[in-house]
Formats: sequence, structure tokens, C-alpha cells
Amino acid sequence: MTTALQMQAADQGGMRRNNLALVLRLLHDKGPRSRAAVAVETGLNKATVSSLVAELIDRGLVREVGTSTERNGDAPRLGRPPTLLEIDGRNVACVGIEVNVDVIEVVVTDLAGRRVFEHVRPLDAAGHPPSRTMGSLTAVTRHALDAVHDRCPTVAGISVAVPGLIHAGDRAITFAPNLHWRDVDLGVRLATDLGINVPISIDNDANLSGLAEYRVGEFAGTPNLITVTGQTGVGGGIVVEGRLLRGASGFGGEVGHMHVLPDGPECGCGRRGCWEALVGLKSLLRRAVPDLAATLEADDSLGPDDKVARVVTRAQSSDAVTLAALHEHGRWLGDGVSILVNLFDPEAVVLGGFFRDIAPWVLPIADARLRELAIAPHARQCRLAASTLAFSSAALGGALHAAERVFDDPAVIDVRRT
Amino acid sequence: MTTALQMQAADQGGMRRNNLALVLRLLHDKGPRSRAAVAVETGLNKATVSSLVAELIDRGLVREVGTSTERNGDAPRLGRPPTLLEIDGRNVACVGIEVNVDVIEVVVTDLAGRRVFEHVRPLDAAGHPPSRTMGSLTAVTRHALDAVHDRCPTVAGISVAVPGLIHAGDRAITFAPNLHWRDVDLGVRLATDLGINVPISIDNDANLSGLAEYRVGEFAGTPNLITVTGQTGVGGGIVVEGRLLRGASGFGGEVGHMHVLPDGPECGCGRRGCWEALVGLKSLLRRAVPDLAATLEADDSLGPDDKVARVVTRAQSSDAVTLAALHEHGRWLGDGVSILVNLFDPEAVVLGGFFRDIAPWVLPIADARLRELAIAPHARQCRLAASTLAFSSAALGGALHAAERVFDDPAVIDVRRT
Repeated sequence: MTTALQMQAADQGGMRRNNLALVLRLLHDKGPRSRAAVAVETGLNKATVSSLVAELIDRGLVREVGTSTERNGDAPRLGRPPTLLEIDGRNVACVGIEVNVDVIEVVVTDLAGRRVFEHVRPLDAAGHPPSRTMGSLTAVTRHALDAVHDRCPTVAGISVAVPGLIHAGDRAITFAPNLHWRDVDLGVRLATDLGINVPISIDNDANLSGLAEYRVGEFAGTPNLITVTGQTGVGGGIVVEGRLLRGASGFGGEVGHMHVLPDGPECGCGRRGCWEALVGLKSLLRRAVPDLAATLEADDSLGPDDKVARVVTRAQSSDAVTLAALHEHGRWLGDGVSILVNLFDPEAVVLGGFFRDIAPWVLPIADARLRELAIAPHARQCRLAASTLAFSSAALGGALHAAERVFDDPAVIDVRRT
Repeated sequence: MTTALQMQAADQGGMRRNNLALVLRLLHDKGPRSRAAVAVETGLNKATVSSLVAELIDRGLVREVGTSTERNGDAPRLGRPPTLLEIDGRNVACVGIEVNVDVIEVVVTDLAGRRVFEHVRPLDAAGHPPSRTMGSLTAVTRHALDAVHDRCPTVAGISVAVPGLIHAGDRAITFAPNLHWRDVDLGVRLATDLGINVPISIDNDANLSGLAEYRVGEFAGTPNLITVTGQTGVGGGIVVEGRLLRGASGFGGEVGHMHVLPDGPECGCGRRGCWEALVGLKSLLRRAVPDLAATLEADDSLGPDDKVARVVTRAQSSDAVTLAALHEHGRWLGDGVSILVNLFDPEAVVLGGFFRDIAPWVLPIADARLRELAIAPHARQCRLAASTLAFSSAALGGALHAAERVFDDPAVIDVRRT
């Protein structure tokens, strides 16, 4: 079903921009190929493809590279082999930054997704006012831009991942319970502090992790893909038919606050019985390492991964309390995932963040529980898997998000002008 | 974010079909207007609009009607007033049929959405094998097609709504717990029995109710809209950014089987703790009219609306047991709706089926519970409302679905050839 709003009059100018995007995206998604192959795969005629490719090369987004061994079926090759095209964009910086409770992480890629810079800075965001974290963010961002400037002078955009609710309209942070932030206008402040004219967007960290899984994770390209990340909180990045679900105001995908146990334990958000209160970091520590939980929780020098490492060590030494706790954790994980599967019928659910570290123990239990509770025969075939991306994939998702802007409309960028 | 798969090369032929659809959808959604207004609103040039309109008139889908009083701002009108265009399609039958536990209901509309035929036939689908229900379905469909043949000789399509899981690939019914059906190839059998060459599709009843709400309900056109229907089971029709959520295999939106209470009451699907087991018809009767529940449940001569009427009567006479039960029902309703709101961040949630009848008692409670449990400040502004459509809107949704085919691609139909 299509609404009038979604349909756009296909005029000539819009058509060309759309076709530029189509060709650029094809080269990005499917790899190097000839102009002739681009024509076949897009359905565009060869003259149009030549003209589009000329513009993309001119903009520095595509380059010619070597010659093809493409064969046209079994027909003998006539004449000289065609030139191959590939994504260029070596000069374009796509900047992703994650601000989390204990760390700021930066990933810069070029347009082809090659990492050109990475940096991690420890932090105590929850223990200080937003202004102090803002200062660190500005410093880290400036450092990253300086570091990549010679190689990538054109900045496609900066996307900042935050564990909170981001309003779709003004991209301000409405509420980030684990950072203790309310109504922080991070995007505007970062732009002012940096004093440069570059598109800056703010996004929910789990949304950007979901984008990273959808673009470069094990299930890349899976049309209906759910990512559930365990950090201090529990977030969700939900892709429906190839599009990130955002909702009316950008607050969609709040999987951590699904009400799954009436009168359940208290959550960081102040409610009772949220899924996060059952499968989040705090409940894991209290259940699996009850003797260490209070100390670990109070120690701001440790990141979630350091804390989860204590659980993993105990599990590896077959500690009975820890193993029983992980079993219970797996059951709760399966309960919540089953709700997502009954609602979204995805091809796969990927568990990221600290869920990856405890996956050997919780995944089989969660999976069995999912099979029990999923109503659809197909849903029972939905894959449940641990992420193969690094602990936090949100910064990488930010860089990919900054690149999307160019893939959606290559005309926004022109490296020649830089 | 857009995937290569979603992007289509805009060639000339595709562009014209797309623009035909654009003009037809505009006239349908926004009502009668002049060619000049169509040109302004679509961004197409006037010559293109004239040519598109000529083709739509030629196909019998649009007609000229009267003259306009449209004003171009405050400019004085020059020359004769322009002719208005409106949706025609008087000859096009869009057939929607709902097969439910106790009833088959048919709605036939023309392309403009005017109802040209309605019929309701009582049934005991759960008490008989699928073949008997199939026979009734064929008879009812044939009767409807005969009845409208003189007025609407061109049939756009037949869409059948069934309370069950419909596989996206072959459109067969995989599992319909309340009908006691498994693996019924209803579409193919209906086509064979009817012996006519008309597109037939099978869909989940709640999906089609969701489509009806999205097209003609109180919140028509709301991009993110969730419909929850109480029939014998509890179903969901979820619209995300103007598109019905279907999932990888068509099994999305199974709201009734969200696992909301560990070790909760048994559900019709055989599991424990499904939302349907807490807010469905059976639990309502057992809670609200415990003395009548067993008798009502066993009486196949009564439809869900007759049974719910007993609850309403007791509530109207302020029966304490019934009122307390409705309070509890409202709380459970709010619990489940809060999960949907936290995940989808919709503008509105519409309650259909028997929830409409008990809305005066349960809606305020459910609404308060939703405000408590929704994490996002905006989500707390999400509207929760009773449907203004009739008891079952699935048949109407079926007729609208059959019409969608024409709106998506007007070239599929040509009433001149009939």
C-alpha cells in the first residue's frame, strides 16, 4: 500500500538525482563492475549510465579501476575488455561518534567504508554535568577532524550516538536515563563549539548499531532485522523492509522498556517490570556475581565490558550460582525476543553489546524459549545470533549514517570544491 | 535509509505508470479538483497532466464533473471556470470478504469506495471442517458477484480476511487457531470453485482492519497507526510510515500472542501468558460474567458481539463484579498497548471489534496505564481511541485492499474491455 505522500512526481531533475543515487548505491552494495553491467542491473540505457558515471567521477565519488573479466554468458569476448568502476570517495570523511556512560568512541570512514581513524576516550558521563561531557565530545571530534583532514578534507557529516530518546524534529536529546540527561540540545551545541559548517545529526545508539548490523554485520542486507544491544541499558535497532523504524517522533524501538513482568524489578527509568530491568547489566551482575555486584556497580572506572568479564570468568570456571543466573538471564532474554518476533516477524535477531560476551551461555536458552513462544511456524525459523561486530557498533553506525546522506543524494557533495 | 532493492530505475514507461497512479491517488485522497490543481499538487507539468487524465478517463477510472470554484489566491478569475475531475470507477467492483468463527461477511465497493453490496451469513466455522466453510464462502462470493454484476461488471479483485497466519509466499493459511484450520490453501480453492479469472488474495483479518482504519477510519492517513481488534482472538494491524507491517513471511503483527505474563492463563494457541489470554473474549466473559461464561462460550449460535452485550448490560446496571473485571481488563489492555507504543511510537492506537463495546469502561483505565508505562514523553501523547468503524472492519478492509491494486497501478484495469 502506498500513500500519496510517499509517491513523488517523477520529473526530469528528480529522476537524474534518483538515478545518480541508484548507480552509486549499486557500486557500493555490489562492488566493482562495468558501465554495461550497471546498465543491465539498473535497467537504464547505456547513454544515460555513461552520463551518470561521468558526473559521479567528476564529483570524486566513483573512479575507473582496471578492466573487467566479466563475460556475457558463453559468448566469446569481442574487442577490448570494459573498464571497471568502483566507489571512490577516498577524500570524504564520514564521522561517527558514540557518547556512552563510560566512554566516547570515534570512528571515521571514507565513503567506501574504509576506516581511516579510530579513537576511544574513557569518561564518566553519568557522574558529571552534560557540559563537561560536551567539552570532551567537542575535543574528541576536533581531534578526529584534524587527524583525517589531509586524507579526507570533505566531511560528509557527523553522526553522534547517544543512549537516549532523540526527538525526530529538532534532534535534541529528550531523555537519556543512564546519562542522567534531560533536554540537552547536543547537536546545536556541538555545531557552535566546533564552529564549522558540517551536517551534524544525533541519533539513538541502538538505532545506529542496528544500522551497522544492517549494512556491514553478519546479516547485512536482511530486510527485517532486529538488533538488541546490552550496554548499561538495553536498546533496540529495528529494520522493517530495509528501513530503520523510527516512529512518529523518533522514539520507536525502545525494546528495553517493554513491560514484561507486572510488578517486576525497578528499572533505571523509574518504572517496574521493564525488560531492561530483567536482562540489563545491573540485573546480570546482581544475579550472576551477587557478591561483587555492589562493588562493580559503584566503580565508575570500569566499563560494562570489564564488569561483564567478571561474570564470564565465573561462568568459565563453572560457578553454580553464575551458571544458574545465566540460565535465568537467557530465559528472560528469550521472553522479550519472542515479543519482538511475534510483532515483527524478522529474518534474524542479533544480540550486541555485552550479550555477545555471555552468548555461549544464554543464547541456547533464549533460543529455545523463543521457539516455544513464537506463534508463527516461520518465526520459529528466525535466526537468533550474537553480533560479530565490536562491543559497541554505534560509532561505526554513525559513520555509516553520515555516508547514507551521500548515497541517498550524491549531488549533496562535490569533492572538487573542497 | 534506502536500499538498492527499494530504488527503481525511473525509465519512461515506469514513470508514466507511476504518474498515472499519482494522479488517481490524489483525486481519491483529496477529492475533486481541476487539471491545473493536479499539476500544482503533483509538480507535473500541465501537458503531462492532461495526457494522464485523458488516459484515466479513457480507462473509466476518472470523470469530469461540473466546474470549479477554485481560486488562485486573491487573483480575479479570468476566463471560464475549469472543469473538475473526480474518481469514477463506478463499474469497478472491489470485493472484501471476512471469514470468521461465526460469520461470513461481504462488502463490495466501487473504486470510489461507495458501498454497492453488503451481506452477512451466520456460520459455525470452528465446528465444521474447512470444506464446509469453503462451500459457504464460494456461495457467498458468487452471490455477491451476481448481485453487483450489472452495476460493476469489472472486478478489481477479491480479498478474503481470515483470523490466522497467512504465508506471504503462497498466500495459504498456515494456522488459524480459532477456526481450527491448518494449512488450508483457501485462495487456490476459491479460484477453482468460482471458475473465474479474477485476482484473489487472502490476508489476516486484523491486517485488513488496520488497512480500513488507515484508509477510512477516524485516524485515516496517520502514518504510524496501530489497530488492535478484539474478536474471538486478538489481532493487530500495524501501519509503519504509511505501510502495513507484514514481516519476513507475512506473520508480523501477532499482538495477541505477545508473552506478557509468565505462567499466565492458557491461550487458544496452546501457550501460557499471551496477551490474548488476558484481554480476549474468553477472559472477558470469565472475569466479567463468571456465572454466564461457560454457557456463553458453548453457545455457537451467538457471535462475539452478542456475548459481549451481556457484559455491557451488567456494566450498565453497575454490577460490582463486572465493573471490577472491566477495570482489570483495562489494565491488561494498557499493559499490552504500552509495549506497542514503546516499540512503534505511533500517533494513535485504535481499538476495534468488541473493545469498542466495552470502551466506556476500559478505555480510561487502559489510557492511564499506557501513560504510566510509555517511556517517551511523546508516546504519552499517543492517542488511544475506540474505532468508529463497524464491529468487523475486515471485510471493508478487504474491499479497500482490492481497490489498492488499481490505485497502485491504474494500467491493470480497463473498464472499456469488459
